[in-house]
Order: sequence, then C-alpha cells, then structure tokens
Amino acid sequence: MRPSTTPPAAGAGPGLVVLGIDPGLRATGWGVLALAGSGVSSAEREELTVLGYGAVTTDPAVPLAERLRRLSLGLREVIGRWQPMEVAVEEAFVAANKRVAIAMGEALGVALLAAAEAGLPVFEYSASEVKQAVTGYGRGSKEQVQEMLRLQLGLEAAPQPADAADALATALCHLMRRRAEARLAGAGSLLGGRA
Amino acid sequence: MRPSTTPPAAGAGPGLVVLGIDPGLRATGWGVLALAGSGVSSAEREELTVLGYGAVTTDPAVPLAERLRRLSLGLREVIGRWQPMEVAVEEAFVAANKRVAIAMGEALGVALLAAAEAGLPVFEYSASEVKQAVTGYGRGSKEQVQEMLRLQLGLEAAPQPADAADALATALCHLMRRRAEARLAGAGSLLGGRA
Repeated sequence: MRPSTTPPAAGAGPGLVVLGIDPGLRATGWGVLALAGSGVSSAEREELTVLGYGAVTTDPAVPLAERLRRLSLGLREVIGRWQPMEVAVEEAFVAANKRVAIAMGEALGVALLAAAEAGLPVFEYSASEVKQAVTGYGRGSKEQVQEMLRLQLGLEAAPQPADAADALATALCHLMRRRAEARLAGAGSLLGGRA
Repeated sequence: MRPSTTPPAAGAGPGLVVLGIDPGLRATGWGVLALAGSGVSSAEREELTVLGYGAVTTDPAVPLAERLRRLSLGLREVIGRWQPMEVAVEEAFVAANKRVAIAMGEALGVALLAAAEAGLPVFEYSASEVKQAVTGYGRGSKEQVQEMLRLQLGLEAAPQPADAADALATALCHLMRRRAEARLAGAGSLLGGRA
C-alpha cells in the first residue's frame, strides 16, 4: 500500500470514490481514485485524486486455496480502508491457455466476491476499453500507456508495480464513463443529479 | 439440499467427514460423505454414509459478482451445516474455450476460498482420478459412472442433479485415497493412528 493521503471519513461529502482492481493470482493490483463531486467541469485533471494504490501478492509455494484467501483478505482490507462506492474490474484478457484462464478466473472470482460482499456495484471493463480511456485513442505500448496514466493522474512517477498501475487505469476508465454519463444527463453534480 | 440423515453434532466421535465440491458458475454441486473411523476393514460399503448432497444454483440473469456471492453463501451454509473435516474439489476439466475456463475458474476460486475461510484442508482431484475411483478402472460413460456411484454409496437411485453426483464422486475419491493411505500406514484407525 502506498497511500498518498489519509483515507476519507465514511460518507464524507460528495464525490465518487472508485476502487479499480486488476485481478491476478500472483498479484492483484488495486487503485483508489476519487472524483470531486462539486461539478462536471472541463478541468478534468484537477478533480481527480489518487487516494492509494498497491498490489496484494501471493506466494506460489502456498496452497491455492490459501493464496485465494490471502487475496480476499487483502481486498477486503483495501475496501474497508478506502471505502469505495463503486468497483471497476479489468476483465481477464485473453489468456495464454486454458490453465492460465482458470487461474485468472479464480482471482477474478475472488475479487468480484469481495466487492459483492461489501455491497458494492461492480463494473467490468475490457483491457482495450481501459487502454482507450487512458490514452484516448486505444493504442500505444505498455510504457506509453503508463506514461499517459501518470499524466492523467498528475503523478510524478508512473505507479508501481504494474498491477497497481493497471488497477488505477481501470478505475480511471470507470470514472470517465461516469463523467460522460453525467454530462449526457446534463447533471450539474455527478452524484446529486441536476444542480 | 437433500440430506439423508440429520447433521452430525460437532466433534461427534471418530470418523472422517468429507465435503466434495464440483464447482460451476451455473450450478456448484456438493456432497457430504462420512467414513466411520472405527477401523479400516474390507467391508468398505458399510462404512460409508451419505450425509447429504445437492447443488447451489445461480441465475444467469443476475450480475456475475452477485452470482459468485450466492455460490459463496451456499457453500458456507453447507460447510456450517455438515461440518466437514476435509474438502475435495474436482479440478476444472478441460474447458471448451478460454471464456468458459475463466467462468470455471471463478466458481472454483470461490469454492476454494470458502474452504480456506473455514480453515479446512482442500484436496484437488482431476476428473479422471474421480472416475477411476468410482469405477475402479477409469472408464465408462457418464451413465455407467453414475450407476457405479449409486452402488458404491448404497443409494436406491442415482443422486440428482448431476452436479451433486459429481461432487459425491469427488468426495468418494478422496475417502478412497485416505483409506489407502491409512492401510499403507498400517493404522488401525483412520484418524487415530495405530490401534
């Protein structure tokens, strides 16, 4: 965990706090973004706050069930600490083979379960949707995407590890969708409906 | 749920109670078998008791995270009710494609997590190991395997639904392994070591 600010108090003011998750058995990345709910202005960068990010890692030498429990505990800790209102999960991308796909599904299932148990709505995004949201045009190398993410989030360095960066990118993707929805609805406030 | 007897009291006497799980997103089968711990005799059939079996099903129309929560709740209910000492899970068999493999992994992950959270040791078996244990020679059609399972468990009819039958077969596979281990160790009692 590498929190950049202290956790927000429960129910503190308006705004949307989103937890992004990049599920993986070896490492599940997470990142928490807040979008100030005062209004949907064009000064997008200033509204975004990176609350924290990191990765829950597991030891491959440990039995599988225990690794999944570790992932579950870690994600619950993150949810309890940052109290997100919504969860955005990156859908498992095309796996190398079926065995990898199953392992990916195991981590994804545990992540979705942690969100559901906390009563949080979950939104799934494909890897290409996330990349599109970050770069604006859906292309670019992994390094370029990381650099774009850094700029979007106003960070001094690219978030590490890569799983955490992917999780932040997923949270960003969801916030952009939310913002677009709010604009389309002509709402003055993201959460409070029309101003 | 279709219990054939009332649940055993916690810590009641010797014996091994095994929960078999056949994970699936649409339906996760479960079956609980007890092996009397008085001794490892050759009268195998009489020692086995079917405590209960059934399947936790989910509605495909419901969001994925909610379906996984339903599976988790159902399995926890089963664990709480039957208080198994060990859990045997059928490994995801070869999936039709990667998307199916991911869904399978999701259900498997939730099942393994439920066992780990209950502090239960988990044993995974491949589909061919399970079939081998039930039929004794690892072959046969699905119907033949079901009929062999019915005979092994001394049931009047094949367990339904098929997911529950698969879960019972997995539990049976694990019990046979345990019995073989006890015999190899020359133990007079399955759980208590040498008589």
